[in-house]
Amino acid sequence: MGIEHDIISYREEINIGLKNIYPVGPKSLKDPIDYVLNASGKRIRPLLAILTAKACGGSKHDVFSEALALELLHNFTLIHDDIMDEDLVRRGRKTVHNKWDEGIALLAGDAMLSLALKMINKSNQPLKQMPIFINGLLAVCEGQALDKEFEKVNYISLKNYLNMIDLKTGYMIGLSCHMGALATGMNNSIALKLRDYGRLLGRAFQIQDDYLEIFSDSVVMGKSLQSDILLGKITFIIIKAMEKDLEKINNGIKIAKIDFTKGIKYIRNFIISSGIKDMVINEIDNIIKSADSKLENINIKRKKLLYFSNLIKDRKK
Amino acid sequence: MGIEHDIISYREEINIGLKNIYPVGPKSLKDPIDYVLNASGKRIRPLLAILTAKACGGSKHDVFSEALALELLHNFTLIHDDIMDEDLVRRGRKTVHNKWDEGIALLAGDAMLSLALKMINKSNQPLKQMPIFINGLLAVCEGQALDKEFEKVNYISLKNYLNMIDLKTGYMIGLSCHMGALATGMNNSIALKLRDYGRLLGRAFQIQDDYLEIFSDSVVMGKSLQSDILLGKITFIIIKAMEKDLEKINNGIKIAKIDFTKGIKYIRNFIISSGIKDMVINEIDNIIKSADSKLENINIKRKKLLYFSNLIKDRKK
Repeated sequence: MGIEHDIISYREEINIGLKNIYPVGPKSLKDPIDYVLNASGKRIRPLLAILTAKACGGSKHDVFSEALALELLHNFTLIHDDIMDEDLVRRGRKTVHNKWDEGIALLAGDAMLSLALKMINKSNQPLKQMPIFINGLLAVCEGQALDKEFEKVNYISLKNYLNMIDLKTGYMIGLSCHMGALATGMNNSIALKLRDYGRLLGRAFQIQDDYLEIFSDSVVMGKSLQSDILLGKITFIIIKAMEKDLEKINNGIKIAKIDFTKGIKYIRNFIISSGIKDMVINEIDNIIKSADSKLENINIKRKKLLYFSNLIKDRKK
Repeated sequence: MGIEHDIISYREEINIGLKNIYPVGPKSLKDPIDYVLNASGKRIRPLLAILTAKACGGSKHDVFSEALALELLHNFTLIHDDIMDEDLVRRGRKTVHNKWDEGIALLAGDAMLSLALKMINKSNQPLKQMPIFINGLLAVCEGQALDKEFEKVNYISLKNYLNMIDLKTGYMIGLSCHMGALATGMNNSIALKLRDYGRLLGRAFQIQDDYLEIFSDSVVMGKSLQSDILLGKITFIIIKAMEKDLEKINNGIKIAKIDFTKGIKYIRNFIISSGIKDMVINEIDNIIKSADSKLENINIKRKKLLYFSNLIKDRKK
């Protein structure tokens, strides 16, 4: 039974754990919580927590509460972000505020966060895990705040963009590895290297997400492709393209606002012909390599984590 | 220096603590957080935590982190509730989503909650305090969910109404006393009696709030008086009035929707002439008495808490 099978079976167990997380409660909370947690998801954060625990010589059981908490925290941010971004579709289904209303989505998110915190309390190491989990919560709020602030400007420096995605995405993926390590009693210096591995993997993941947003179609991504482009979101690939030819990209965005298909084609063509596409793919590979390098010279079983890095690298959605 | 002076000085220290809670962060988070925490507030929850700690023989310092966390949790709920209830004014000033926008209010609330959790981590007893704090968070979400569900129905039983306000208001005020007791190392059975004192005080407080909403004018309450009536919110006083004469109250609400001043006068007159007003005042007194009775036969210095009960009883806003 190889790692592929392991991942499928962990994902299954995570899904079952999530399904039973809120057995009784007011209907207007329970229904949207069940709806969200029954949706398919990649479960990257809980999987990473478990794989990290395994790499440190521990077991799935050592970190299962934390794993569920991480997925709940992630879904809390998705529900609230979707309200803010006015996204109507997520994972191929209506977002919560679209299916119910904004108030219900807001409150379901809050309740989901409290369920996440309850899981941390249930973990074997609440005194170690709670502080970093809460730092993760604040980081993700700050990342989202910066993301929304950046929507209102015409240009962001690469440094500011990377800081934003590190807070919004990298921090929580780093947290997943950090918690996985701490759950097994791994010493702090190795736990921090695993955290840094996760943070870089998260950075690559987000850059790739923005790349896929341009080059996949919305059916594959399972969420509304239009929103980011139309919101004028400046992402890694857009920054690189703007550095090459600002006018062309602004023109493409302008066209997309009138005729989305035409605008996106225009932007795609420019990004391909100018070599930006290859450059971004290369950059994603490099960041994943530097993530993997954090795992060198530490006494862990790194094989499954390297396999996971590769899964991320090769993902199409 | 008497207790009146103590309360003023504690409130001052709480305000200073809150002012310094988030020194650096994205502008779109920091501005609304500062705005909310600089508003005047009664600071009932942190005051109760401190007064309970004193009653248990401890000091303000024993529970100061928890006190700030409780006020932050309370303000988190106000920001999110105001979005859901579409309230435009709070404490005589624009609500956050009214001054900025819904997205900013949503996120500022989330960040404020993470600051609250950070304060619990900083407390002397995080392992004892965190689980009950998180239970309080879920309770308040469930209370708000029920409150919104009840807006859609024409009648609620008194039992369901009391369950809703116990979750929405009582739980957190009980939590304040509970945390104050635990912070001093008070044994669990006494801590639970103090919690129950707070829960009943919170129940009285909410019934009184709904009473004041009918009998104060909006200037005194510092928030929009109209919203609850126009939303058709069924409160303790309204349930009692409906039990007396359902048609009259429905008629009053109908009038208020067309001409607010006329409708509220109609409702007020009926509530006074039918004796409901006196009955509700009497009921509030009785609940506060039963709260106070929880403090009997336990080894604490109850004087300051009894004084506080009285302050609540006599409040005009």
